[in-house]
Amino acid sequence: MTSTATVMPSATQLPVADANRIRTIRHRSEELIAGLEPEDLCLQGMADASPAKWHLGHTSWFFEEFLLSGCAGYRPADARWRYLFNSYYEAVGARHPRPQRGLLTRPTIAEVLRWRDEVSTALEEHHTHLNPQLLELGLQHEQQHQELLLMDLLDGFSRNPLEPVAQPNSALETAHAQAAGCEAPLEWITHEGGLVEIGHQGAGFHFDNETPRHRQWLEPFAIARRLVSNGEFAAFIADGGYQRAELWMSEGWAVVQQRGWCSPRYWRDEDEFTLLGRQRRQADAPVRHLSWFEADAYARRAGARLPSEAEWESAAASSGLEQATGCLWQWTGSPYRPYPGFAPAAGAVGEYNGKFMSSQFVLRGSCFLTPAGHERLTYRNFYPPASRWMASGVRLAQAVVA
Amino acid sequence: MTSTATVMPSATQLPVADANRIRTIRHRSEELIAGLEPEDLCLQGMADASPAKWHLGHTSWFFEEFLLSGCAGYRPADARWRYLFNSYYEAVGARHPRPQRGLLTRPTIAEVLRWRDEVSTALEEHHTHLNPQLLELGLQHEQQHQELLLMDLLDGFSRNPLEPVAQPNSALETAHAQAAGCEAPLEWITHEGGLVEIGHQGAGFHFDNETPRHRQWLEPFAIARRLVSNGEFAAFIADGGYQRAELWMSEGWAVVQQRGWCSPRYWRDEDEFTLLGRQRRQADAPVRHLSWFEADAYARRAGARLPSEAEWESAAASSGLEQATGCLWQWTGSPYRPYPGFAPAAGAVGEYNGKFMSSQFVLRGSCFLTPAGHERLTYRNFYPPASRWMASGVRLAQAVVA
Amino acid sequence: MTSTATVMPSATQLPVADANRIRTIRHRSEELIAGLEPEDLCLQGMADASPAKWHLGHTSWFFEEFLLSGCAGYRPADARWRYLFNSYYEAVGARHPRPQRGLLTRPTIAEVLRWRDEVSTALEEHHTHLNPQLLELGLQHEQQHQELLLMDLLDGFSRNPLEPVAQPNSALETAHAQAAGCEAPLEWITHEGGLVEIGHQGAGFHFDNETPRHRQWLEPFAIARRLVSNGEFAAFIADGGYQRAELWMSEGWAVVQQRGWCSPRYWRDEDEFTLLGRQRRQADAPVRHLSWFEADAYARRAGARLPSEAEWESAAASSGLEQATGCLWQWTGSPYRPYPGFAPAAGAVGEYNGKFMSSQFVLRGSCFLTPAGHERLTYRNFYPPASRWMASGVRLAQAVVA
Amino acid sequence: MTSTATVMPSATQLPVADANRIRTIRHRSEELIAGLEPEDLCLQGMADASPAKWHLGHTSWFFEEFLLSGCAGYRPADARWRYLFNSYYEAVGARHPRPQRGLLTRPTIAEVLRWRDEVSTALEEHHTHLNPQLLELGLQHEQQHQELLLMDLLDGFSRNPLEPVAQPNSALETAHAQAAGCEAPLEWITHEGGLVEIGHQGAGFHFDNETPRHRQWLEPFAIARRLVSNGEFAAFIADGGYQRAELWMSEGWAVVQQRGWCSPRYWRDEDEFTLLGRQRRQADAPVRHLSWFEADAYARRAGARLPSEAEWESAAASSGLEQATGCLWQWTGSPYRPYPGFAPAAGAVGEYNGKFMSSQFVLRGSCFLTPAGHERLTYRNFYPPASRWMASGVRLAQAVVA
Repeated sequence: MTSTATVMPSATQLPVADANRIRTIRHRSEELIAGLEPEDLCLQGMADASPAKWHLGHTSWFFEEFLLSGCAGYRPADARWRYLFNSYYEAVGARHPRPQRGLLTRPTIAEVLRWRDEVSTALEEHHTHLNPQLLELGLQHEQQHQELLLMDLLDGFSRNPLEPVAQPNSALETAHAQAAGCEAPLEWITHEGGLVEIGHQGAGFHFDNETPRHRQWLEPFAIARRLVSNGEFAAFIADGGYQRAELWMSEGWAVVQQRGWCSPRYWRDEDEFTLLGRQRRQADAPVRHLSWFEADAYARRAGARLPSEAEWESAAASSGLEQATGCLWQWTGSPYRPYPGFAPAAGAVGEYNGKFMSSQFVLRGSCFLTPAGHERLTYRNFYPPASRWMASGVRLAQAVVA
Repeated sequence: MTSTATVMPSATQLPVADANRIRTIRHRSEELIAGLEPEDLCLQGMADASPAKWHLGHTSWFFEEFLLSGCAGYRPADARWRYLFNSYYEAVGARHPRPQRGLLTRPTIAEVLRWRDEVSTALEEHHTHLNPQLLELGLQHEQQHQELLLMDLLDGFSRNPLEPVAQPNSALETAHAQAAGCEAPLEWITHEGGLVEIGHQGAGFHFDNETPRHRQWLEPFAIARRLVSNGEFAAFIADGGYQRAELWMSEGWAVVQQRGWCSPRYWRDEDEFTLLGRQRRQADAPVRHLSWFEADAYARRAGARLPSEAEWESAAASSGLEQATGCLWQWTGSPYRPYPGFAPAAGAVGEYNGKFMSSQFVLRGSCFLTPAGHERLTYRNFYPPASRWMASGVRLAQAVVA
Repeated sequence: MTSTATVMPSATQLPVADANRIRTIRHRSEELIAGLEPEDLCLQGMADASPAKWHLGHTSWFFEEFLLSGCAGYRPADARWRYLFNSYYEAVGARHPRPQRGLLTRPTIAEVLRWRDEVSTALEEHHTHLNPQLLELGLQHEQQHQELLLMDLLDGFSRNPLEPVAQPNSALETAHAQAAGCEAPLEWITHEGGLVEIGHQGAGFHFDNETPRHRQWLEPFAIARRLVSNGEFAAFIADGGYQRAELWMSEGWAVVQQRGWCSPRYWRDEDEFTLLGRQRRQADAPVRHLSWFEADAYARRAGARLPSEAEWESAAASSGLEQATGCLWQWTGSPYRPYPGFAPAAGAVGEYNGKFMSSQFVLRGSCFLTPAGHERLTYRNFYPPASRWMASGVRLAQAVVA
Repeated sequence: MTSTATVMPSATQLPVADANRIRTIRHRSEELIAGLEPEDLCLQGMADASPAKWHLGHTSWFFEEFLLSGCAGYRPADARWRYLFNSYYEAVGARHPRPQRGLLTRPTIAEVLRWRDEVSTALEEHHTHLNPQLLELGLQHEQQHQELLLMDLLDGFSRNPLEPVAQPNSALETAHAQAAGCEAPLEWITHEGGLVEIGHQGAGFHFDNETPRHRQWLEPFAIARRLVSNGEFAAFIADGGYQRAELWMSEGWAVVQQRGWCSPRYWRDEDEFTLLGRQRRQADAPVRHLSWFEADAYARRAGARLPSEAEWESAAASSGLEQATGCLWQWTGSPYRPYPGFAPAAGAVGEYNGKFMSSQFVLRGSCFLTPAGHERLTYRNFYPPASRWMASGVRLAQAVVA
């Protein structure tokens, strides 16, 4: 009786990734570490983050484990690396404890880069014979880790009193350019609600958690055209936002006390710590690196709330939302749960998304660190409500009295 | 633009609680501790639980703080008790740390009972002049704590190798009677889905979180007529349910490892620890005292899932669900979040429900410890997904292919 | 080749404890709880402390386990209590976790007192046939726990904002009387050093750790005639004593920071919390309830140091030390280690002292809570350097240039 | 009245370190990292250990802070490094938290090595004008960190499943050579005891904690000619040594349970993890990398005990102890406390030794990682009793019946 819709696109739907696409995406990862020191690449600032070198290894492992290991003639670089670079796939076996990834000074970055070359070459060579869905999944996975690599690096660097500066590169230059965009007064876009459809449908790549496309009923609502700015968030702080228990979820209030939060994560005096080093904070730039608890509290003080993910997706699909993608991931008020009829992909890759559907909130859009072409309006990102090391921001919503 | 519907029923809607109702409910709390030792009443088994004496004091404090303190001529028993018996109301001020409630050997139970008498007498005397909504809220609050008192006591007693037995009383005798009811084979009730309405409406008492009544779209689904039984859960265990990572949320799997879970909380060999002491476990009784993670994993192995709260409420309102109330709280797949248009009650009592709307799941129905008349089909109970000291159970649901 | 001197006095040396002595000592324990509530007796303020009821049970268990269990016709009260009331004797078997003693609301105090009666009666009946050394050890053990019971109770009561008052009794009245004694200016008693003998010798009762009596070489030293006073310690605080890292052991400095210490444990404004409730602190009373770290830091600022235990014992035996016993336990600079040639008693009672000889410091003398007749100049008490819930004080010493 | 003997040797006693000695010792540190990867140098395996790069920086900081900062014309490399490379000198100011040293990917190893060159050059240039005591102290300090660097690296590498191998160098080759020496049956050397003198005296360099030389009374004792071997320790394990509570200090037994200890730290099956990688363990080599608790338990089972430091020093000075230096640090039964009349050096360097005199035990001798010429029979090394990442071993002692 259960509906088990196919959630991975079928081979006929998805064009085979060609060698050029493989090369471009793989190469992009390596570009990210240009100018960094070998020490930097082994840096793990906290248990939730991973060293850049680990990301570079793990994305290679993913291809090796799920695609190349079955290729005649392909020989894994080192059998023991399977243990080191498995992230969380229980079906694949035991793995190195996540909080200890920073202790893996070996393999060296040189060895990992050599491995990457071998994996990339094998992928380019064999790509016509590989499962095209899994190949595309591997490339999308690689792109996800490009973003993770940078946000984890920022976390690690932020713990060094010397405030290191990463070598500027295109992703980061974009970041700099994005440090504005909230100049206009806050405008509300109304949506009449009713029966809407959300979720992915059709031929293009998507993750299993974006399906099945399904109906939801929405009450009329309004959603902000742009994100909340640094200047607006500064007003929240000036108004005692971090001292007023009534604005916070009980759980969030406890976190504020325990960790002594009094501003977004990377604010430092009048500045902000970034991958380009310490930079003057712009009042008109969207506020970033805040937790769901802070986003929720901000909205409550504003007499508003966070949009649900269905509201966000419907509005983004139909109206003129600014900063919907390419700027900051946007917290929604929706806990991360399966869509009606959801079934995870078969096999170990079924662990990709489905097993994280508790105690997290959905973020929508994409961020300035997201590789171009990786974003989708149906994309569901998710983090626990106390996390704030990713490039998150806030968009407000509110009910509309009909 | 925001809709701020009045979420507390207005005075005209709600009949004033009469002195008899006050006396009956207050007295019921005191009956619960009949036969217990003074030591038992100060027992706090863990930080999440509270001593029975504290519950008896806190429910009195609630009336004193929100109702009696404004009465001419009423004198609080001891100004310092305000600090001791505030649970979590930030607006009321600082409070005794929750994990240290068991250290409060003073005031003694005799003093607390004397205080209860004074508060009850004052309520009966003044009840015609009190805010009827707050008075009713206080009584409902008292009833909630009657259930909490018993479940916390069970937790505390469960930590004593002597396996103490609480004095039987009517609530517990009911419990014993409830130790059956799953004899019939599992049957599914189908629901065609569509646009449904859930939430409370009308004159009766309800908590703010049950409103506003609103529409939701449901896909067709089936829901189990009865709860999952001990015998069925034993089969899950026998099938390696606690050892199969693929059945669990990642977060739940970590909890299983850390705490060494291998059965529901109070299972002991062939028995079960209860307030009536160690009792032989009945295969046909509904399985109880399990976490959301266990309920979710059980459902996944069964090729099913937990119902959403909208599904549960719709089915309970329209179909022949057995064990819907008076048996066990039933985990849903719905994270606890505000209904569209929800606004918490004004003032300190607005902290009652609204600030807990993160990282918890909704349970529906009521349990055998719930005082008669306290249950409602729109009632939203909530606990974190790893909690299992309350009387929780599992009802399955699944999608229906149209 | 190893010297294994008999460390328990032989039967011929030790007079058999008569029924009267048994009755008196056992009864004394029960007197201590006069006026306390049943709730108070189950109070465990922290993992290091135990509830009064547990002390009353444990001292009975000691007799049952090591003496009565071998008596024809003696029937243990409840086989399961053996598990509950074993403190730390690995040779006896598994035991209830220490931090959870406060959860044992059962057996009730009434049951424990009934058990005490049975044990006392059996001891009085059988005492002529019991091992006189073990019988005496049991009585001394009971006396030790009389002191522990009171200091643990003080710790527990100190955590209640109501500042409970224990019923005055003789031990506590003495305490009140002791709240003075440091009026005279600090005087130094010199000792020429040389080869001294310390440790117990002869017929009287003593613990194994006081033997063998042995020689030690001492350099000339001076020792303070009286203890450090509250007034003197207040000067240390006023001088920034808790803020000056150079006065502290590195380990102690970390504790000061972590726990936010800024005065002795029970100081409250101008008062001091005691078993008689909150009392005005007397400048001329000896400062009490401080850790070894605080004692050591105080001495360093005074240009002095703590006496070694050999210095203390030699001076106490030969000179006019005031407040040597019956006042406060006095920290020494000596880590607790075995005397040369020490061998623990045979059997499970060998765990009594010997296994604690690491990471603790020796205290000498006795305190106002110590039962009369229990003190000895060779007595070696010991606690970890961060402990301060016992009745500890400070006596200074310093080197003498010959 | 206090004796404040000068504990740092006076300038006239100590020959000024010449430029050659400075160069040789400084260069030695840099040789230790030959063949290691930059990643390896930032590795911090646990909070107690430090990255190699940090050791290289800290030893330079020591010279800069205590000697060069006062030299006309000397300019510190980077004012912020003062914060990064201060270890524990409270008098110098705030410092980077020890557990986060591994997060300092910057300054890079190249920058640190450049700084080392500048410091070394300045020392060589100015050495005739520098305080010769502090200069020598800096060099001895550098040598201590050479040993620490290697033992910390071993700890870090031991956490990598790849079991990295450090480039062999002379220190490590010696280690390999030392993997034997316990072939002979255990022989006992007797010492008649009496009044002995221990501690440093005379013109050579020494740390303040080795003074003043003073008298101690010793009872007759016997001490083992050689250290305990791997083979002998394996017999302890085979005899259930790690399962027999009666052999252990209570504190040590708790550590064994918590950490699951069942062999010395680096034992792996039949092998041992070393800086030369995984090596076959030799039965005739001295057992190493064990805690004081393990050494103490081993001795107890052997019917022996650990020597006191006075016994060790007396025996080493007068008899034919084998493996006294250059092999393994040897646990003694002596807690680390000041000698009678001890006074720490004046100023911030007074924090060097004196503030660690609680909760640690003394080790004597030196180890195969200790730089040649750095050892002394009066040397007092010290570690907490649960530490085992340093090159520690066991020598037995016992009392002799006169």
